[in-house]
Amino acid sequence: MSQYRTFTAADAVEYARQFGGVSDPSSLIDSEEVGDGNLNLVFKIFDRSGVSRVIIKQALPYVRCVGESWPLTLDRARIEAEVLRIHGHYCPDHTVKILHYDADLAVMVMEDLSHLAIWRGEQVKGLDYPQAATQLGEYLAQTLFHTSDFYQHPHQKKADVIRFTNPELCDITEELFFNEPYEVHERNGYPRELEPLIATLRDDDELRLKVAGLKHRFLSHAEALLHGDVHSGSIFVGEGTLKVIDAEFGYYGPIGFDVGSALGNLLINYCALPGLLPPREAADVREKRLNDVRALWQSFAEGFLALAAEKSRDRALAYSGYGAAFLRKVWCDTLGFCGTELIRRTVGMSQVADIKSIDDEAMKAGCVSQAVTLGRTLILAAEHVEDIEALIARIRQNG
Amino acid sequence: MSQYRTFTAADAVEYARQFGGVSDPSSLIDSEEVGDGNLNLVFKIFDRSGVSRVIIKQALPYVRCVGESWPLTLDRARIEAEVLRIHGHYCPDHTVKILHYDADLAVMVMEDLSHLAIWRGEQVKGLDYPQAATQLGEYLAQTLFHTSDFYQHPHQKKADVIRFTNPELCDITEELFFNEPYEVHERNGYPRELEPLIATLRDDDELRLKVAGLKHRFLSHAEALLHGDVHSGSIFVGEGTLKVIDAEFGYYGPIGFDVGSALGNLLINYCALPGLLPPREAADVREKRLNDVRALWQSFAEGFLALAAEKSRDRALAYSGYGAAFLRKVWCDTLGFCGTELIRRTVGMSQVADIKSIDDEAMKAGCVSQAVTLGRTLILAAEHVEDIEALIARIRQNG
Repeated sequence: MSQYRTFTAADAVEYARQFGGVSDPSSLIDSEEVGDGNLNLVFKIFDRSGVSRVIIKQALPYVRCVGESWPLTLDRARIEAEVLRIHGHYCPDHTVKILHYDADLAVMVMEDLSHLAIWRGEQVKGLDYPQAATQLGEYLAQTLFHTSDFYQHPHQKKADVIRFTNPELCDITEELFFNEPYEVHERNGYPRELEPLIATLRDDDELRLKVAGLKHRFLSHAEALLHGDVHSGSIFVGEGTLKVIDAEFGYYGPIGFDVGSALGNLLINYCALPGLLPPREAADVREKRLNDVRALWQSFAEGFLALAAEKSRDRALAYSGYGAAFLRKVWCDTLGFCGTELIRRTVGMSQVADIKSIDDEAMKAGCVSQAVTLGRTLILAAEHVEDIEALIARIRQNG
Repeated sequence: MSQYRTFTAADAVEYARQFGGVSDPSSLIDSEEVGDGNLNLVFKIFDRSGVSRVIIKQALPYVRCVGESWPLTLDRARIEAEVLRIHGHYCPDHTVKILHYDADLAVMVMEDLSHLAIWRGEQVKGLDYPQAATQLGEYLAQTLFHTSDFYQHPHQKKADVIRFTNPELCDITEELFFNEPYEVHERNGYPRELEPLIATLRDDDELRLKVAGLKHRFLSHAEALLHGDVHSGSIFVGEGTLKVIDAEFGYYGPIGFDVGSALGNLLINYCALPGLLPPREAADVREKRLNDVRALWQSFAEGFLALAAEKSRDRALAYSGYGAAFLRKVWCDTLGFCGTELIRRTVGMSQVADIKSIDDEAMKAGCVSQAVTLGRTLILAAEHVEDIEALIARIRQNG
């Protein structure tokens, strides 16, 4: 760590020339810091023609959006680079490519995806990428199956659990997902008139017990190497293309956490659309979002089942039908974690553009209310929602 | 590892003089190797009066009962010593005391428990220790609660998951518990006439799927620092005293595994008693064994619930009622793992004295048949046995 220094724009250009893997490094002449996340510096490196060619991402030794008062391990850059390399090995089509990683500087060099757009921004505009949900389902099936006990040798899996032990980043999730939205907490934020609804999150014993169970599974169920933060802001999309980025929350956890987070972000957009678009357009796009929800689960589930049938290496877990039995549990976990994602993104600290972009305050409160109510329903009903069609029926019922 | 050498009897005496913590080290003059287990050397160190004063346990770099063809990590001595120290911290009354540990030599020095008797031997003779089951339940409650997410800080817990990663010993359990008894395997052994019954273990889809689920939980559910091999041969008992030894299989796993293994060994004895004692005496002792089963679960469950109510430190898991909700899952796991213990101890490689001591071959086959059938029932019915009384009713039904 002794060599660590925060990159300037010039440092980033120099570094990209060295490690960016471009054939004409001297043409890289300019950079722009574009990190809009909560944690890191992100530089786009431009060539003489003003074309972005390489991305440099550097971890800061503290939480960027809070400041130096909240220190945060630089080791997260290693975890991110290694998770993306492993996920890229199993799903090269939908994982951003890591070109170089340096532990001392906590720097990663990545392929430039500037020709693509962040999915969340596109969803906020009501734009549709008909293949994206299916592709994200494929990413989840490939990465989660291949890093699970179905496929990994037990020795390798245990070594990877160690390698991807990620206490400081998991801390953030443990707090923001499972504690704060269910407490009176200074980091929470929601329209004041929703206080009676939000109070029901704190006072409902059954809900609190379900959330405790979900947190306990997040803490103890080392099922697969998760991305750990699959949301539409961590995903680039384009015509027929999808790339997942930002894996610093990666660790060995419950498979339903990644799948549920992914579905949850589609559903936040679903709830926000009436505040983002004119009524008729909103209704149309909502139908597309429900199609995305269906496509994502089906693609994940079919992919996972096919891999379990063809590629399971554990003798016991390879038994015919076990993949489907396990997937049933993943489904219940998915619905629960999906519910916690809906709530933490609307009540807790990590608010999203889908909601923040709604100008009309009454409309915003209505959309948040819908998201919270849906989240609550999913957490409570997780074990009683039969299948994806029953889920979609519940979503429609919710309004 | 460079300093490792296998201890002779004289080495053991010399080592005990140095590290045995006795006030008169020069009085230690003799030793006897008494290791009857499958893995290690165990020396009793005697003084001039012929009294055993200290125990020296050394790990061998291979599986003792198989030979040098099956190498096995010496690191298990570290794991054993550290598990026993942690368990001893939380349950000093029922954990053997570790006086000294040396990593290079893979040697532990332990308090001498020669005034006590191994519980299995006593059970084989039909002897009753009325407090033992309750005390074992206390040991399980204290050790498993205090090392769980309820009590440990998430950073400490994650560090301990790493520290107690135990791939080679877990390998043995993964194979012997969850694979081999359900396959045609050269290491299996059972009375030939039971082949039709044993074949049902291989051919029953529902059973195989349940066993796959149990193995998957053993592989992935890091709930607490388990002993990993709680059976009546790892437990000393005396008048009002119980001490657990032999924790080299320790790792972070599902709580129900330790509890189920403990119950399973009581039930193997229950099934074996008609082959070990005259009919009337056998019937009497069987009732005592059922009382042990009840006492063990009640003591564990009440202890765990009381600790969860008083000492939980995780904000979400501390929510009133969550301990009981979680214990419901532990109960289902316990029944399943108990079933696999019954089967692996009677069909698989690790046979026990309860069965081996039965002279009459027909009687032996009858007892094995009963144990296997009970094991099968528990695995299949794990989620449908309401409580401890319902379990006892099932056991009686089984014959």
